[in-house]
Amino acid sequence: MNPVTQVPPSFKIPTSMKAWVLGDPDQLTFVDKPVPEPGLAEVLVRIDAIAVCATDLEIIHRGPPALIQGGLPFNKNFTPGHEYMGTVVKLGPNIDEYQVGDRVTVEVHAGCGRCERCREGMYTACLNYGKNYGGMNKGHRANGFTTDGGFAQYAINNINTLAPVPQDMSDAEATLIVTAGTAMYGLDVIGGLVAGQSVVIMGPGPIGLMGVGVAKALGASEVILIGTRDNRLEIGRQLGADYTVNVSNENAVEKVREYTHGGAHYVLECSGAPNAVNDAALMLRRGGRICLAAFPQEPVLIDVAALVRNNIYLFGIRGEGKGATHRAAALMAQKRFNAKLIHTHTFALEELPTALRYARERIEDAIKVVVKMTHPEGC
Amino acid sequence: MNPVTQVPPSFKIPTSMKAWVLGDPDQLTFVDKPVPEPGLAEVLVRIDAIAVCATDLEIIHRGPPALIQGGLPFNKNFTPGHEYMGTVVKLGPNIDEYQVGDRVTVEVHAGCGRCERCREGMYTACLNYGKNYGGMNKGHRANGFTTDGGFAQYAINNINTLAPVPQDMSDAEATLIVTAGTAMYGLDVIGGLVAGQSVVIMGPGPIGLMGVGVAKALGASEVILIGTRDNRLEIGRQLGADYTVNVSNENAVEKVREYTHGGAHYVLECSGAPNAVNDAALMLRRGGRICLAAFPQEPVLIDVAALVRNNIYLFGIRGEGKGATHRAAALMAQKRFNAKLIHTHTFALEELPTALRYARERIEDAIKVVVKMTHPEGC
Amino acid sequence: MNPVTQVPPSFKIPTSMKAWVLGDPDQLTFVDKPVPEPGLAEVLVRIDAIAVCATDLEIIHRGPPALIQGGLPFNKNFTPGHEYMGTVVKLGPNIDEYQVGDRVTVEVHAGCGRCERCREGMYTACLNYGKNYGGMNKGHRANGFTTDGGFAQYAINNINTLAPVPQDMSDAEATLIVTAGTAMYGLDVIGGLVAGQSVVIMGPGPIGLMGVGVAKALGASEVILIGTRDNRLEIGRQLGADYTVNVSNENAVEKVREYTHGGAHYVLECSGAPNAVNDAALMLRRGGRICLAAFPQEPVLIDVAALVRNNIYLFGIRGEGKGATHRAAALMAQKRFNAKLIHTHTFALEELPTALRYARERIEDAIKVVVKMTHPEGC
Amino acid sequence: MNPVTQVPPSFKIPTSMKAWVLGDPDQLTFVDKPVPEPGLAEVLVRIDAIAVCATDLEIIHRGPPALIQGGLPFNKNFTPGHEYMGTVVKLGPNIDEYQVGDRVTVEVHAGCGRCERCREGMYTACLNYGKNYGGMNKGHRANGFTTDGGFAQYAINNINTLAPVPQDMSDAEATLIVTAGTAMYGLDVIGGLVAGQSVVIMGPGPIGLMGVGVAKALGASEVILIGTRDNRLEIGRQLGADYTVNVSNENAVEKVREYTHGGAHYVLECSGAPNAVNDAALMLRRGGRICLAAFPQEPVLIDVAALVRNNIYLFGIRGEGKGATHRAAALMAQKRFNAKLIHTHTFALEELPTALRYARERIEDAIKVVVKMTHPEGC
Repeated sequence: MNPVTQVPPSFKIPTSMKAWVLGDPDQLTFVDKPVPEPGLAEVLVRIDAIAVCATDLEIIHRGPPALIQGGLPFNKNFTPGHEYMGTVVKLGPNIDEYQVGDRVTVEVHAGCGRCERCREGMYTACLNYGKNYGGMNKGHRANGFTTDGGFAQYAINNINTLAPVPQDMSDAEATLIVTAGTAMYGLDVIGGLVAGQSVVIMGPGPIGLMGVGVAKALGASEVILIGTRDNRLEIGRQLGADYTVNVSNENAVEKVREYTHGGAHYVLECSGAPNAVNDAALMLRRGGRICLAAFPQEPVLIDVAALVRNNIYLFGIRGEGKGATHRAAALMAQKRFNAKLIHTHTFALEELPTALRYARERIEDAIKVVVKMTHPEGC
Repeated sequence: MNPVTQVPPSFKIPTSMKAWVLGDPDQLTFVDKPVPEPGLAEVLVRIDAIAVCATDLEIIHRGPPALIQGGLPFNKNFTPGHEYMGTVVKLGPNIDEYQVGDRVTVEVHAGCGRCERCREGMYTACLNYGKNYGGMNKGHRANGFTTDGGFAQYAINNINTLAPVPQDMSDAEATLIVTAGTAMYGLDVIGGLVAGQSVVIMGPGPIGLMGVGVAKALGASEVILIGTRDNRLEIGRQLGADYTVNVSNENAVEKVREYTHGGAHYVLECSGAPNAVNDAALMLRRGGRICLAAFPQEPVLIDVAALVRNNIYLFGIRGEGKGATHRAAALMAQKRFNAKLIHTHTFALEELPTALRYARERIEDAIKVVVKMTHPEGC
Repeated sequence: MNPVTQVPPSFKIPTSMKAWVLGDPDQLTFVDKPVPEPGLAEVLVRIDAIAVCATDLEIIHRGPPALIQGGLPFNKNFTPGHEYMGTVVKLGPNIDEYQVGDRVTVEVHAGCGRCERCREGMYTACLNYGKNYGGMNKGHRANGFTTDGGFAQYAINNINTLAPVPQDMSDAEATLIVTAGTAMYGLDVIGGLVAGQSVVIMGPGPIGLMGVGVAKALGASEVILIGTRDNRLEIGRQLGADYTVNVSNENAVEKVREYTHGGAHYVLECSGAPNAVNDAALMLRRGGRICLAAFPQEPVLIDVAALVRNNIYLFGIRGEGKGATHRAAALMAQKRFNAKLIHTHTFALEELPTALRYARERIEDAIKVVVKMTHPEGC
Repeated sequence: MNPVTQVPPSFKIPTSMKAWVLGDPDQLTFVDKPVPEPGLAEVLVRIDAIAVCATDLEIIHRGPPALIQGGLPFNKNFTPGHEYMGTVVKLGPNIDEYQVGDRVTVEVHAGCGRCERCREGMYTACLNYGKNYGGMNKGHRANGFTTDGGFAQYAINNINTLAPVPQDMSDAEATLIVTAGTAMYGLDVIGGLVAGQSVVIMGPGPIGLMGVGVAKALGASEVILIGTRDNRLEIGRQLGADYTVNVSNENAVEKVREYTHGGAHYVLECSGAPNAVNDAALMLRRGGRICLAAFPQEPVLIDVAALVRNNIYLFGIRGEGKGATHRAAALMAQKRFNAKLIHTHTFALEELPTALRYARERIEDAIKVVVKMTHPEGC
C-alpha cells in the first residue's frame, strides 16, 4: 500500500490556517484557525481538493442528519466539509502505514474501535457516534459531521480513514472516490451484488451516477438508471448504464420489469422520493434488495405486505464503510469508469459560498462542484 | 437421519379418503377424494395431526396472501391446511431418505429446484411459486396454499419438505415444529442471531411464543416479549422470556431500551400492528435487525429516515426455509423449550369447522388448536 | 435471460448420432449411438464445440477423480467430455427458461436437488454424486464424469447446467466460459475476493490463466502469476497479470511478499505441485485464503502449524458452482478479458484422438484444444 | 452489560505487586513489580483466579508459538499466563463500559484496530501482532504472549478484551469462559455450526471438552468425542457428548460414519496428532469443515486430494475472537453446560511451579489447574 519514496518530502507547516467555520445556520465565515496536531493513529492532511456534497448543504442549514451528542454544530467554531483529498504532511506517533508526501483521499468515519459494531467491522454504525466532544471522548470521528472537516487548508485524519490516491489521478477526481465508495458499500459490501445480476439506480445524483459506474465495474448485467432529467441520464449512459428511464414520460416499474425479464436483483435508491420504496418493491424479483442511500424527511406510506410477500431486504447506508473506499479506489485506479464525467465546476477555497450556491441551486446543471486549494511551494 | 427399522411396517392404503375442500369463500365441505399417488421425489403421508394457523383462516376466507398463478383457490376442490405431521405410508420411485413407517413433520414449500432462488438455497422465495397447475408445472408445491394441504387423511409431500419427528414427541407437539422453524428461520438463518444478543418479540401469537423459546435456546441474553394480554405474556415467561411488557400499561420502547442497556439487537415482529416497524426501529441499537413475520394489510406510515440513520436491516419471511425446520426439530428433540405450552385445544377431523372457530375467535383463549386424526389399525 | 425469438427455429433431429465411447482405459471408439430424449427439466443440446480438459485425459486413462457409485466408466458405452457449448434443439416438458435455437454453454454438475448440500445451493458438493445409474437414480448428473458427455453430436442437459452464450461470442470462446467459471467460483463465490485485494495464481494452465482474467475483472489490485514457462507467463500478462514470476530463476515467495507489501490475500493453486500448499502459506498475509483447483495424487508433507498460526483458510473446489458460470459469462459478455488467448488449436470431431494427443503432450505448446462440430443445414 | 452499582466500591491499589517473571527458559522467579497504570481504553484488573493452559507451558519452555517482533520473551521481566479473571479496580480515561468493582474475564487479544484484519473484525489475526514493544507500538496486546499476563496480582487490559462474569459464577469457573470461547469461535463464528448438525471433537483436553459443551448448547444433533483415556471420555459424556470413541480399541472413522449416518458436518481437532487432518477428512461428509485448534510441530503427510474431492474446508484458529468469549459467557451464564467438571486442582499464586507441574505431568489426571489469588480486604 505504501509506495517507497526514496526521500520523503518535508513540508513547512504553518501554525495557523484559513478555514471556513459555521456560526448560526447558513452563516459561514472565513477565519484563521490553528493548524491541529495529529495524535495517536492520526496524520495531518493538507487538503488539496474537496467536493461539495448535498449533506454539506444540510449540515450548514440544519445540522447533521443524525443526533450529535453534545448538540448541533452551530456557533462552535466547527468546519464542515467531508469529501476531500490531500497530502499527508505530518505523522502522529508510531505511524508507518503512510509517509509524509503520500496523496490520500479520506472516508468520513473513524469508529471508536471499542463498541460492538466497530469490533464487527461495521464502523459506520459505531455505537459511540459523535462521542468526541466534552467529557467523554471515545475517539469516534466523523470529519465534517462531528469533528472538523475539509473546508479548510488542513485537517486531522485517523489513519483508518485514509485510502491512497493513484499516481495518475487528478485531485478533483480523487475527491469522488468516497462517493463511489458509498455506492460500492451499498451494492457490494452490504448488498452482495455479483456479476451477472441486474441493478436499478433511482436518482441520477452523484451517488447514483457513481453507482452506475460501480455496478457495471462489478459486472452487473443490466444497469438501469431512472431519473427526470435527460442530460443526467445521458451521463449515466456514458458511465455504463444499459438503459435509462425518464419517469416524466415512461412507467419505470414496467420498463424495469421488461428490461430485466421479470424483475431486478437490486435497487440502489438515491432519489429520496416519497414513493421510492414502494416502486422499488414492484421493480424487484422475489428475494431482491433495496439499498437506501437517500430518504424522505417525513414518514411515508409503505406497503409492508409487498416487502414481506416478496422476501425483499431493505437496508440503509450512512456513507461508505468496511473498506469500500479502498475497493472503489482500486476500480478507479484501473479506470473502470470515468468518474470525471460528474465533476462539472471548480472554485477556489475563498469562493466556497459560490460553490455551495452552485451545488444547492444546480446552477448550470452542476453535479459535483469541487473546491481546489492552492498551497505555497513546500507547504 | 433415517433410523434403521428392522421390518418396515406396511400400510393398507385406501383408494379414497375423507378431506375438507373449499367451495366459495368460507365454505368448507367434508368429502371423499381419491388418495393421491406419490411421484418422483415424493412420498404419501398419512396425516396424524394438523394445527390451525392464522393463515389457514385467511386462505379459507380470502385466498392465499400471495398471488397464485391460475387464480384463487375457491371452487377448485382445494384442500387447505399446512401445519401437519404424520406417517410415511408409501414411497415414490428412488426414495431412500425415508422409509414407510417414519413419523415426519412437514414444511410448506418445495421449491422448483431450477430457478435462481432455489439454486441459492432460498427455496421459500422460489420464482416459480404457484406453478403447479395448468399448462406449466414447474414442480413448485406449497401444500395448503397452492397444492392440496392437510385437512384430510392423506397428502403428497416432496421429500425436501419432510423432517423426522423424534420418537418420544407427541403428534400434537410435532405439528408445532414448523411454527418454531419459522421463528428459527427469521432469527437464525436470515437474522444471524448469536448467543449473548438481545431479542424483542412483538406479539405473543404462536410464532412469537415459539420465537421466545427459539431465541433462548440459541442463547439470547435478554428476550423481551411484548403484548397486550397478561396470560399470553405469562406463557412467554414459561417459555423463557426474561422480561415481558404489556403495552396496555407500559411504554414498550422505553422498557426495551432499559432492559437492553440502550437498544436490542433484533426485533421479531409478529403483531402486524400498523406502527410496529416504527416502534421496532426505536427499540433497536444501531445496526439492529427487524424480521417481519406479520404485516398490516394496508400501507402504513414509516419513518424511513430512522431506518437509514440507524443502519437498520428490515426483512420479511414467508414461513420457514433453508433447513430451519430441521434446526427447530433438533432443538425440540433436545427439549430446549416446551412447545406444548401453546397447544390449547384438540378436535377431530370431522370437527374442523369448530376447530377453525376456536382459532378464529380465540375461544377459551385458544392459541394452537390441533386437529387429531384417528386411523383404523394398519391404515 | 431468454431473448424473444420471433419464430423459434426448428431442427431436424436424427435418431442416431456419432459419438466417441470409452472401452478399456485409453480406448476410444467412434460409434453410432441413439440421440437421447430430454426428460423433466432437461433439454437436448446439439454440440457445436467442445474443449479438451486435463480431467478428460484422466478419465479416459484412469476413470473419474472421484468415486463413482457403480464402478468405473470403462466398457460401459460411456461418452466423455464436459467443456462444451451448443444449441438447444429440443425441450423436455414444461421448459420455458430456454427456447429451441438458444446458444448455450454448460456446467458439469446438476445436483440431485434433494440432499442437504443441494438445498444449501452447494450443488457441486451434492451428496448423491454419481447416483444416476442402476437401481437408485437420484437425478444427479455430471456430464462427462458420470453421465454421457460432449464428445458426440448431441447431449442431454439439465436446465440448471445451462448458461446463455452472448450473441457475438464465437463457439470456441464459449467453451471457455466454464473454465473461467471455475476460477470465478474459487475466487469470488467461495473465496470472497473483493476489489483491491491481491491474488497469486500458481500454475498458468487454462484455469490459472482464466483466473488471471477473472481476478483482474473483479478488481484485484495485484495479480501475480507464477509458472515455469515464459510464453505461458506472457499470455498471463496479456490477460492482465500485473506481475509474473518464473520459479526457474526467481524465488516466488520472496517476490510475492515484495509485490504485495507483506503477503497476498489469496492464492489460487492450479499447479498440483507437492510443495504448493506450503509455499502458498508463506506467500499469504495473516487471514489469507488458499483455493485448491489442483492437487497432487499422493499425500504430501504440509506444515499445518504455519496454516494455524497465520489463520489461513484452505478449501478445494470441484469445478464451478453456485451460479459462477453465469457470472463468468456475464464478465466475458462484457469483454473484460480476452479468453480467446488460451485457445490454441482446433480439430474436427473425428480427429478427437489427435486433439487429445495435442492436449496431453502439449504439442506446439497447446493450451486449450477445441473440437469444433459441423452439422448439416437445419440439424 | 454494565450492571448498575449503587455505590461503586473503591479499592486501595498498592504501588507494587507480586508477580512471576520469566528468566531463561523454564526459570520463573517470584518478584515484586510495579502495579501498571491503565491508559486509553484500558483498565487495571485485580486478578482473582487464573487457569494454566498448555500454551503457558510452551511459552515458559520455548517462547510463544508465533513469531514475536522483537524477540523471545526470556529475560525480559515478562509475566506469562493468559486464562484469568478478576475485578476491575481502576479505569483509564473515558471508560464508561465498565465500572470499578465489576467482575470480568479476559480474552487474550486486543487488536491494533488499524490493520485490515482488525477493521474486518478479525482481531485475532491482527497484522500488527506483537507490535507493542520497542520503537513501533501499534497498540496490539496479547496478554501472556507479547504483553504481561496474569501470573501476578494485577494486569492491564484493553476494554475490548473484557467480558462480564455472571454474578453467581465462581472465580474458578469464570477462568474457563475463554476456553469455551475458543471452542465457540471455531464452531460457531468461523465454522457456522447450526442446530441439528453433527460434530466430532478430537482430543478431550480442555478446549475439546468445552467444545463438547458448546456444540451441544448450540443444538448439535450428534456430538462424538474421540480420545484415548476413558475417564476423560466419561467427563465428555457428562458435558453432553452423545457418543465417545476410544481409539485404543475402536476405529474412529468407522464409528463416526456410523453414528452420523454417512459422515459428520464438523471436526474440531484438539489433539495435535499427526494423522488428525487425514482422519478428519474421512470422518466428514462432502462439504464438511475441519477446525484446527491444535497442530503437530512438524510437517505431516496430508492427502490433499481427499480434501479437494470432498469439498472440505480447513481452517485454524488462534484462540477466541469476534466476540466469541461473550457468546460463551452468555451460554455459561445460562448454565447450558457444566464447565466446572474440568476444573480439577487449585493452588495459590506462590505455588505456581507446583501448579504448572500438575498441568504438565497431568498429575492425578489434572485437566484444568487453577491458581486462586487472595487479596487483603479492600485491595
